[in-house]
Amino acid sequence: MAIADKIQWFIAQSSWIRKMFEEGIQLKREFGDENVFDFSLGNPNVEPPEELKKELRLVVGEDLPGKHAYMPNAGYPETREAIADFLSLESNLTLLRDHIVMTAGGALNVIFKTLLNPGEEVLIPAPYFVEYRFYVDNGGGVTRIVPTHADFALDLQAIEDGITEKTKAVLINSPNNPTGKVYDAAAIHALAIILSRQSREYGNIIYLVSDEPYRDIVYDGVTVPSVLDAYPNSLMAFSYSKSLSLPGERIGYIVAHPDCEHILDIMGGLVLCNRILGFVNAPALMQRVIARVQGMKVDVGIYKRKRDLLCDGLASVGYAVQKPEGAFYLFLKTPIADDVAFARALQKERILTVPGSGFGGPGHIRIAYCVDDETIRNAIAGFGKVLKEFK
Amino acid sequence: MAIADKIQWFIAQSSWIRKMFEEGIQLKREFGDENVFDFSLGNPNVEPPEELKKELRLVVGEDLPGKHAYMPNAGYPETREAIADFLSLESNLTLLRDHIVMTAGGALNVIFKTLLNPGEEVLIPAPYFVEYRFYVDNGGGVTRIVPTHADFALDLQAIEDGITEKTKAVLINSPNNPTGKVYDAAAIHALAIILSRQSREYGNIIYLVSDEPYRDIVYDGVTVPSVLDAYPNSLMAFSYSKSLSLPGERIGYIVAHPDCEHILDIMGGLVLCNRILGFVNAPALMQRVIARVQGMKVDVGIYKRKRDLLCDGLASVGYAVQKPEGAFYLFLKTPIADDVAFARALQKERILTVPGSGFGGPGHIRIAYCVDDETIRNAIAGFGKVLKEFK
Repeated sequence: MAIADKIQWFIAQSSWIRKMFEEGIQLKREFGDENVFDFSLGNPNVEPPEELKKELRLVVGEDLPGKHAYMPNAGYPETREAIADFLSLESNLTLLRDHIVMTAGGALNVIFKTLLNPGEEVLIPAPYFVEYRFYVDNGGGVTRIVPTHADFALDLQAIEDGITEKTKAVLINSPNNPTGKVYDAAAIHALAIILSRQSREYGNIIYLVSDEPYRDIVYDGVTVPSVLDAYPNSLMAFSYSKSLSLPGERIGYIVAHPDCEHILDIMGGLVLCNRILGFVNAPALMQRVIARVQGMKVDVGIYKRKRDLLCDGLASVGYAVQKPEGAFYLFLKTPIADDVAFARALQKERILTVPGSGFGGPGHIRIAYCVDDETIRNAIAGFGKVLKEFK
Repeated sequence: MAIADKIQWFIAQSSWIRKMFEEGIQLKREFGDENVFDFSLGNPNVEPPEELKKELRLVVGEDLPGKHAYMPNAGYPETREAIADFLSLESNLTLLRDHIVMTAGGALNVIFKTLLNPGEEVLIPAPYFVEYRFYVDNGGGVTRIVPTHADFALDLQAIEDGITEKTKAVLINSPNNPTGKVYDAAAIHALAIILSRQSREYGNIIYLVSDEPYRDIVYDGVTVPSVLDAYPNSLMAFSYSKSLSLPGERIGYIVAHPDCEHILDIMGGLVLCNRILGFVNAPALMQRVIARVQGMKVDVGIYKRKRDLLCDGLASVGYAVQKPEGAFYLFLKTPIADDVAFARALQKERILTVPGSGFGGPGHIRIAYCVDDETIRNAIAGFGKVLKEFK
């Protein structure tokens, strides 16, 4: 065999989902893009804010020597300072640029590489973003999955029971991909108490790692509580991919709580791992732009409209739907246990979704509604037809 | 301990070099930037070409929907096509976009993650770029160092002797960091013969991985032969960091030989590893720019002038200097065996260099001459003074 066995195995494992994607492409070729309702990808279709584009043009127009050169690996001091100031307003903490590392994607890979000794465990509530298992494995760790409640709220007892002497971190993702669930302040507080207690019990620090790329995409007045306010041994990974519709540009950051135990080792480790994994630094141009647009976000009202269009539409044809609180995914309970079979039936109606099994949530499908309104409207009849088939 | 033992150890290992960097910063604070001669960093000080800046402004000005969105993980088809066309002209092969993966830095991490099973070996001629050991280790492999000749030419016998049943790849870097050596076509051809023979002998494919970020920075009519023309099981990693003075923007690519055995597995593995390591895709904006500027490069004449200024200057104060053929480093033999002591002596004259021990080349210092002409001119006397002290 030419390539590594593990990589060969990863490719084989994902062959069924790749096959579905390829069939989707085939459907588009056959029926035309506009006649295939593709809800399979989390690629934001809302454009970046006009003011962001303006700032980008300004930054590109500036004639500064060395503006595309290397900067400190952690990122431009002024960018990190702007973010620290913004986060200090959003939390009850005083954050400094020294607590921030700019990232070019890969924040979780950098965090797990920094933290994990071989075999140490990262506990993740299911359903979870598919890639998390890879990130933990890349860092030499072991993923331990625990369930959530039926409404996707954290099952705190399951988390506490899942912690062992090998647990190095708990990874949460709120607003959640694939469920759209937002963990409220009470849940985060209760989680913090469990982590403090278990850290004491085992004599090891258990870190709380919070992945929050959908932090700004929330509806109906819901807010995402700061994990930094709740638990000192916490790290938060943020990305501008969804907040500013810039996923192709690869720009985000990691922030560590100033009172993290061994904070200097952690920051040193994050910068080192960002470097040796080959990221080296986040893209220079986008760092300069980001320094100027703290607090800016896309028009979330557009995603809310799409969410309502989808949820109301599905309800009108007979689905039991609970509206997600954030992100742009609906994790829909399937009328049969076999979510792959259900996704395949939808595919016959030219509706592309992802079976929940891929996210550790069988009996569901993920519907990414970051698509044109027309796509949503035109797919509802097909969703209704398939539901009837299985009833 | 908070962070992973290995990362803690990596940090500790590099503490001496970090200490020298910090002392350098302290010197600058004390004497002023202009009075410290900093040859320690490979951060190009030649500006990107004006035409590149123009293309960047044009690309930023275009109003295309989804221009900052995700694209296929391997990169935009049109960017990869432009590169494939360019490389087809530079080599004797017909390359297609399917042989290319756009990278955001990390090309070698992606390659080694794709290829290496735990414990498999990567053979690297010394002196070598410091980070290579990390990249191999990240992929779960083991680095095996072999010597080069006194003039830094490949020691083909040492390479052949260093190959074992565990050898998965040989990594070369030409033009070389830290030596500036360019391996000529005869050397690459001879290496290819060895790799073919040893692959047959052990019944394993031994890949040739060629890291060529300095490919375009060559002097005196020297050319860098294409490894793709010499050996079918080869992969080349390229970066625009130096060719276009864009290191802060993180843009490059991997190209695989079309006749690589298991080419589909390799390309699939590269795309998968680029994704799961968190790079996902190379920055969108820069990919669009790159599609328009194939063959463009910085004014290499500027680096040549700096090289001559440095080499002639050092010769004039008594050093034995052989002019490097490429890159922007001089790997200078130190008059005493202890290169760290020599670098420390230079530091007293406010001249910052990096001891060769860090590159697996003790008895040398690396002088990065990608600095202002004035810095070079003003440092020569200090270099002379220190040489006299040790004679």
